[in-house]
Amino acid sequence: MDQLIPNTTTLFSQAINFQTTHSHVLPITLFVAVLCLCLAIGHVINKNRWVNESITAIIIGCFVGTIILCTNKWKNSKLLRFDEELFFIYLLPPIIFNAGFSMKKKQFFHNFFPIMLFGVIGVFISTSIVAAGCWWLFPKFGLEGLTISEYLTIGTIFSSTDTVSTLQILHQDETPLLYSLVFGEGVVNDATSVVLFNAVRKITTGTLGGEAALQIVLDFLNLFCASTVLGVVAGLLASFILRGLGFGRHSSVREISLMILIAYLSYMLAELCELSGILTVFFAGVLMSHYAWHNVTENSRVTSRQAFAAMSFIAETFIFLYVGMDSLDYEKWKLSILSLWTSLGIYSTVMLLILLGRAAFVFPLSFIANYLQRGDDPSSKITGQRQVVIWWAGLMRGAVSVALAFKQFTLSGVTLDPINATMITTTIVIVLFSTVVFGLLTKPLIRYILPSRPSPIDDIRLPLLNFEEPMLMEGRPVSIIHSYWRRFDDMYMRPIFGGPYNTDLA
Amino acid sequence: MDQLIPNTTTLFSQAINFQTTHSHVLPITLFVAVLCLCLAIGHVINKNRWVNESITAIIIGCFVGTIILCTNKWKNSKLLRFDEELFFIYLLPPIIFNAGFSMKKKQFFHNFFPIMLFGVIGVFISTSIVAAGCWWLFPKFGLEGLTISEYLTIGTIFSSTDTVSTLQILHQDETPLLYSLVFGEGVVNDATSVVLFNAVRKITTGTLGGEAALQIVLDFLNLFCASTVLGVVAGLLASFILRGLGFGRHSSVREISLMILIAYLSYMLAELCELSGILTVFFAGVLMSHYAWHNVTENSRVTSRQAFAAMSFIAETFIFLYVGMDSLDYEKWKLSILSLWTSLGIYSTVMLLILLGRAAFVFPLSFIANYLQRGDDPSSKITGQRQVVIWWAGLMRGAVSVALAFKQFTLSGVTLDPINATMITTTIVIVLFSTVVFGLLTKPLIRYILPSRPSPIDDIRLPLLNFEEPMLMEGRPVSIIHSYWRRFDDMYMRPIFGGPYNTDLA
Repeated sequence: MDQLIPNTTTLFSQAINFQTTHSHVLPITLFVAVLCLCLAIGHVINKNRWVNESITAIIIGCFVGTIILCTNKWKNSKLLRFDEELFFIYLLPPIIFNAGFSMKKKQFFHNFFPIMLFGVIGVFISTSIVAAGCWWLFPKFGLEGLTISEYLTIGTIFSSTDTVSTLQILHQDETPLLYSLVFGEGVVNDATSVVLFNAVRKITTGTLGGEAALQIVLDFLNLFCASTVLGVVAGLLASFILRGLGFGRHSSVREISLMILIAYLSYMLAELCELSGILTVFFAGVLMSHYAWHNVTENSRVTSRQAFAAMSFIAETFIFLYVGMDSLDYEKWKLSILSLWTSLGIYSTVMLLILLGRAAFVFPLSFIANYLQRGDDPSSKITGQRQVVIWWAGLMRGAVSVALAFKQFTLSGVTLDPINATMITTTIVIVLFSTVVFGLLTKPLIRYILPSRPSPIDDIRLPLLNFEEPMLMEGRPVSIIHSYWRRFDDMYMRPIFGGPYNTDLA
Repeated sequence: MDQLIPNTTTLFSQAINFQTTHSHVLPITLFVAVLCLCLAIGHVINKNRWVNESITAIIIGCFVGTIILCTNKWKNSKLLRFDEELFFIYLLPPIIFNAGFSMKKKQFFHNFFPIMLFGVIGVFISTSIVAAGCWWLFPKFGLEGLTISEYLTIGTIFSSTDTVSTLQILHQDETPLLYSLVFGEGVVNDATSVVLFNAVRKITTGTLGGEAALQIVLDFLNLFCASTVLGVVAGLLASFILRGLGFGRHSSVREISLMILIAYLSYMLAELCELSGILTVFFAGVLMSHYAWHNVTENSRVTSRQAFAAMSFIAETFIFLYVGMDSLDYEKWKLSILSLWTSLGIYSTVMLLILLGRAAFVFPLSFIANYLQRGDDPSSKITGQRQVVIWWAGLMRGAVSVALAFKQFTLSGVTLDPINATMITTTIVIVLFSTVVFGLLTKPLIRYILPSRPSPIDDIRLPLLNFEEPMLMEGRPVSIIHSYWRRFDDMYMRPIFGGPYNTDLA
């Protein structure tokens, strides 16, 4: 028989093992504790709607970062390293999936054209302006050595908006058009920025001629369409399985698990095929809420709405908390060897370019949208006041900007290159500044611009399941295409994939 | 102005980055795809209740493992490395939290005494028998070099049961006593094994005298009490916050997030303090469902039940799938240099010790429980038939055994030591064998033992929210202690922490 020799390294390896485990447990514990704190404090502060969760999380993050920085003698302000993989594999999918899942589809399609104008064409315009501005102005601050591709990625990084703080103030029932436009643009904008980001990263040429620009547009369209198709297929697949297998009354657990897993699978598949997972999972969410949601039990319906929203909420709070902590990352500031004034110059430049880049598309595109909408009722016109609100709503920068910046300029959250460190700190500063300062100004500004706004509706009056589609445009299909789509949906899609027939949902 | 030199390593590092990301994306994608498959197939097969999810997941895992093994030329059968940290930080907490949260508290406390006998004393007896048996028999197979502490950990590893397959066959409404005993023991057993595992790991002496045994018991009691207290505090804290902050009608998202985060926090805190996170999170779950659950909105109630169950379900399927794949890990089999017959000898020895160890406490302890229950109605007696069912129900080994084995015998899922590799393969074989073979035998056996069992109740008749406490023992407090507790609960606890007054819930 085989005689086994006792291995003395076992005990040693277990000791290491134990230590390794603990080195992970402590930061995670602290991070979760801070998250809890954020939630509780956020709720208390949030009651008056002046300060939103993002601002609370960022401020608490800064505060905790300061404490950590003092505790370990200016070495590190962070509990966890921000691995952009953590972000792209675990945090972003639930946020975007929930955006698609909880989207008011009818409102979205009703305003499809202006939303697409703002969300797609707008990102192109904004990216061009920010990239060109940086390319022109950065060398004047002594920041040189960035490639054309990097300038363009900077353009996309600062073109992705975070509309959460505005959406918390706008009321869907009071200003349906504005809410729908801001929400819709926010969602499409996220997807467009990421897709465009991936497209411009591929550029290798030193100069940007007509051919390269065309290549970007083609790459973008290619990524956009392929990702959308994959998302639609995933959503339909989930709907089909949930309908086909006929999960019973007590299989809520399986239904929810399957929805989550298929959505996640679609995201990962898209990433694997070098498509845009964000767009894929968004469309998977839209399709699932359109078809699959009707095939599951009542329990699953409530649970899916709330649980997906909770996942998204935790992920978002996590990111803003991290941004707050990362803003005090001493190492990065030390590495970014620009002087204080130069840094301030760069931050103001970027901020101004963001303001300009957004103005450059909101007002002209609103004009086009109004022109094409001609003759309709005034409630669907984008008036000057509304244009200002839309312009303002998209000035905040958030989670996606941070993620893209980390993806472009770090390797697993770490960078040793001064230029890269500068770009990370710039992003962090812009996100901090726009979220906190612009976020706090949002409520007074909107009150000033839209003074006729009635007092907030009492929450009690809203239905239990407040995700139901509001019946605002009942019975009036938006366009010929829309009416054709609805007929097609009722005749062919719903019988296969589920959902109520002959309703007004689109 | 500072002139920054362009860093050419950036592009290179990004290329690596891209590759690293992809090396993670592919296995996760495949794993999620297989999980989806498991769910769908599991549902189809599961309809007849013969084959449960665990068996499906293990078999699919084996199947996928074979494919992978063939694809990459006998190098590796796994998509992901089983990091025991992944298990203890991410997969175990939701499973145990859900066990506590969904526990029928009244039934549990009604049968508190026999459950504790089986779940605590039983684990001690079973551990002693398995450990002593292995210590006596392993050297006869040429397997030497294990320390006393390691033999005891093997005892705890093989004393943790997995009662899922039996619970899927027993009906709560038909055999309330049996269901309650099996479920209760399963939960307490998990916690006891882990706590005992941590206690015996600390032993450093070469021999096991009375003093060392006493030390284990004291360590165990210490861990047990401290962990329980921490869990209770966490549960009460969550209840208090949810009640105190008065989250409104539309804050389901915050309520659910807070419950999850506080539960997770308690688990991590316990691990950090070297207590038993499993026990802590279990009691956090019990307390939250007793108090906090009553403080949240209707949406949150439905969602918390279903979402926690879904998390637990995904985590469990994940583990069984992994066990299936890991069973084909060629490296580990090669490393474990025992001959086929020796291996089979060891597996049979362990299996026999498990059967024996369980018999050695179920029958005597049932006798004690019956004796102490004297004179009561026959429905609360543990008859001989019921004893056999209880004995059988605890023969399956599952997720916790695997986790403990990986924790003891590997370093982040990898081992290079032949003895350790042997112990891992033995655990895998035992889990596979007991889950599949015993699992498949469970239904015919229970049908044979309990033939008077009526046909399954039609699912439609069960209430929508099927987690409500069944009103089986209405108005009859189990004991003096129980009635005191209820009075105390109604007078002092519920007004502070929430919940309906003067009801029969305990």
